[in-house]
Amino acid sequence: MTLHLNLFLHDTGHHEASWRLPESEPLAHIDIAYHQRIARIAEEARFDSVFLADSPVLWGKPSRRPSGKIEPTILLTAIAAVTTRIGLIATASTTYNEPFNLARRFSSLDHVSGGRAGWNIVTTAGDDAAQNFGLDAQPAHLTRYDRAAEFVEVSKKLWDSWDDDAIIADKTQGVHARDDRVHTIGHVGPHFKVRGPLNVPRSPQGYPLLVQAGSSEDGRDFAARHAEAVFTAQQTLQDAIAFYRDVKRRAIEFGRDPNEVKILPGLVPVIGSTEEEAHALDAELERLIVPEHAARQLATLLRVDHLELDEELPADLPEEAAIEGAKSRYTLIVELGRRERLTVRQLIGRLGGGRGHKTFAGTALQVADTIEEWHRAGAADGFNIMPAVLPSGLERFADEVLPILRQRGLFRTEYTGRTLREHYGLPRPANQFALPV
Amino acid sequence: MTLHLNLFLHDTGHHEASWRLPESEPLAHIDIAYHQRIARIAEEARFDSVFLADSPVLWGKPSRRPSGKIEPTILLTAIAAVTTRIGLIATASTTYNEPFNLARRFSSLDHVSGGRAGWNIVTTAGDDAAQNFGLDAQPAHLTRYDRAAEFVEVSKKLWDSWDDDAIIADKTQGVHARDDRVHTIGHVGPHFKVRGPLNVPRSPQGYPLLVQAGSSEDGRDFAARHAEAVFTAQQTLQDAIAFYRDVKRRAIEFGRDPNEVKILPGLVPVIGSTEEEAHALDAELERLIVPEHAARQLATLLRVDHLELDEELPADLPEEAAIEGAKSRYTLIVELGRRERLTVRQLIGRLGGGRGHKTFAGTALQVADTIEEWHRAGAADGFNIMPAVLPSGLERFADEVLPILRQRGLFRTEYTGRTLREHYGLPRPANQFALPV
Repeated sequence: MTLHLNLFLHDTGHHEASWRLPESEPLAHIDIAYHQRIARIAEEARFDSVFLADSPVLWGKPSRRPSGKIEPTILLTAIAAVTTRIGLIATASTTYNEPFNLARRFSSLDHVSGGRAGWNIVTTAGDDAAQNFGLDAQPAHLTRYDRAAEFVEVSKKLWDSWDDDAIIADKTQGVHARDDRVHTIGHVGPHFKVRGPLNVPRSPQGYPLLVQAGSSEDGRDFAARHAEAVFTAQQTLQDAIAFYRDVKRRAIEFGRDPNEVKILPGLVPVIGSTEEEAHALDAELERLIVPEHAARQLATLLRVDHLELDEELPADLPEEAAIEGAKSRYTLIVELGRRERLTVRQLIGRLGGGRGHKTFAGTALQVADTIEEWHRAGAADGFNIMPAVLPSGLERFADEVLPILRQRGLFRTEYTGRTLREHYGLPRPANQFALPV
Repeated sequence: MTLHLNLFLHDTGHHEASWRLPESEPLAHIDIAYHQRIARIAEEARFDSVFLADSPVLWGKPSRRPSGKIEPTILLTAIAAVTTRIGLIATASTTYNEPFNLARRFSSLDHVSGGRAGWNIVTTAGDDAAQNFGLDAQPAHLTRYDRAAEFVEVSKKLWDSWDDDAIIADKTQGVHARDDRVHTIGHVGPHFKVRGPLNVPRSPQGYPLLVQAGSSEDGRDFAARHAEAVFTAQQTLQDAIAFYRDVKRRAIEFGRDPNEVKILPGLVPVIGSTEEEAHALDAELERLIVPEHAARQLATLLRVDHLELDEELPADLPEEAAIEGAKSRYTLIVELGRRERLTVRQLIGRLGGGRGHKTFAGTALQVADTIEEWHRAGAADGFNIMPAVLPSGLERFADEVLPILRQRGLFRTEYTGRTLREHYGLPRPANQFALPV
């Protein structure tokens, strides 16, 4: 029984006000050396992987916090060059890319990193992203998921278009690869027509680890069908257990081994030497949020014109079914506000730390206990660790929480594999087109 | 008067049979450490830049030579991580990408490398590439160039969508960037509708060095209008002078400073201690070509069913105007064959070395003399160096030819700038949207 830990990279930290702390580097988000340093800390701590969220649009107002990001496959390649073991998971959109280009980029990242690439598959919600690609509004939720499913199918065909034994490099005969082991794919479907083969030989992992992070109905089905790791935002242990069981059950229904779908809820640890110290840091961060900015952003997410800071959420919010995009995040926020009867100001404080992910402020021992509790209760195969402040929150987690988890036999002391799939205990996929040897 | 030198990376070398030499690494094309090693040699030799050709399709038969390539922006990012000064030029297609995604990738490469990114803009000829993107056949030559022009226009708007002084990172006031210095672009044109802003702040160079390599009529116009460096294949000094004058003249007609369009013909040096040794190496490489494979590839390029190895080119080949894609390369090959009355076998030998670029076999002194002659005659602002065999051909060029050029004051002994634009003596572009300070 070993936990899997992913570090969710997010410039100066996941708390939206983290950049205002004296310790934070104001240009961290575009500083490659900074990202390389953090990834090395995570590798030294034996994390399974680092991960970057992404969307092809500028998020939020540039005044509010560090905005704009280095494109993830580029940033992770720069990290690959200074690390040797840690996995590298990049988010990329199936709605605003072409399968040939994206499959090639992930295959390239897998080659460059020696088998450490992962792809967080997203369909990209929002009209603003659509407007960067010639559209007026986002395609409907279902259309996006439909395209995503075919996108993954095409990508797998492209990744399999070279047999693993295609290259023989016979200098004497002058034959570099066997032509009959490199296949056109001739894919024709409702969304894509792609001839192939891919212009990169099959990569060390066969293809990147497939990750998914949407928790709507369609998102869960997609995860159960295609994903090998699932990132999810869960506020309570009860909800997390229900989600875990639901996705594993769906995976079985799709004929998959449920152990090959690893579920990692997000966790925002705020660690202090004492509980009081942890809560003080949390309060300090909350104090640094500009509430008017945050309320405006929350109003956009909830599709209302305006929110009163010192009142609870309005009663007449739309149902999830009426929401196109970021469905599960919408429901989570509305339920959190109503369950705990939070004012908008309080809700912003809670969301400022983790944008819907579970924030836990306490001592290292308390954080370790929570992790163990969730894991033993069947809520998590591992965690998506989202330090409120980087790099200090990561260092503290690595120095204080991980030794406790190791003592309890819950986390590795050394890497045993070389590839990202090996870290997650997942097999290298067979090639669907491979000829007999 | 200083020459600019670009190293054209091409796995084991530009000669198509180079991989068959005992010294060559058979998996060089997918080996990142190999590419990093070569780039370090080029940086040690103070080359302006390294460059990767590319197309989103598998070129040629995998049996013939190392096939498939790491995607160039990824490969150059891995090189950026282990170098500090040398420029990094990636080829990318305007026909099979979206401006938002590609502009972001090049901005990211420029950030990651500290201002060393260049983009070789190509429109991608060939039906086989089109068939990887849902089309049956390539768009017409003119349509591709029309889209390319608008693609560059949109990209420049996106690169300029953040003012250089947008980020203030004021921790006290909680203002990271000034919202009025980050602009939507609202581009609407025949090919693209893009809202913006880009989701990356403006990069060290403002935007990547813009490079172009097509020498057809449309290609020359495009180069004269947009390119800051031009790679070209020229077989004779006379043709090279004519091309040089023509492009500079066109640049002036478009209102540009002709010194801001650097012209670099390709040169394939095959260096020996004596002329005899150089010709022996050349002959050894020619002997390793499998002529039947090469003839089949040449026939495809020339749009004929079959070519007889020991006869000259057929008399009834189509005119350039009837060719859609790779127009200038087509004409160059046909003219070379006819001018020197080569058999197909001889022509293959000549092309095997440089695929239409000038091959020069001789001593280091003779190579240096040729470079100086072309430069002084007004045929070249620099050269695109394409060693027949890598890394040995590069090492020999660096160790034997460069000292002669330095002695003559024709090439730098040390970098004076930090960015790719600075190496090429080009200004950092102003921002078209910038507000007054």
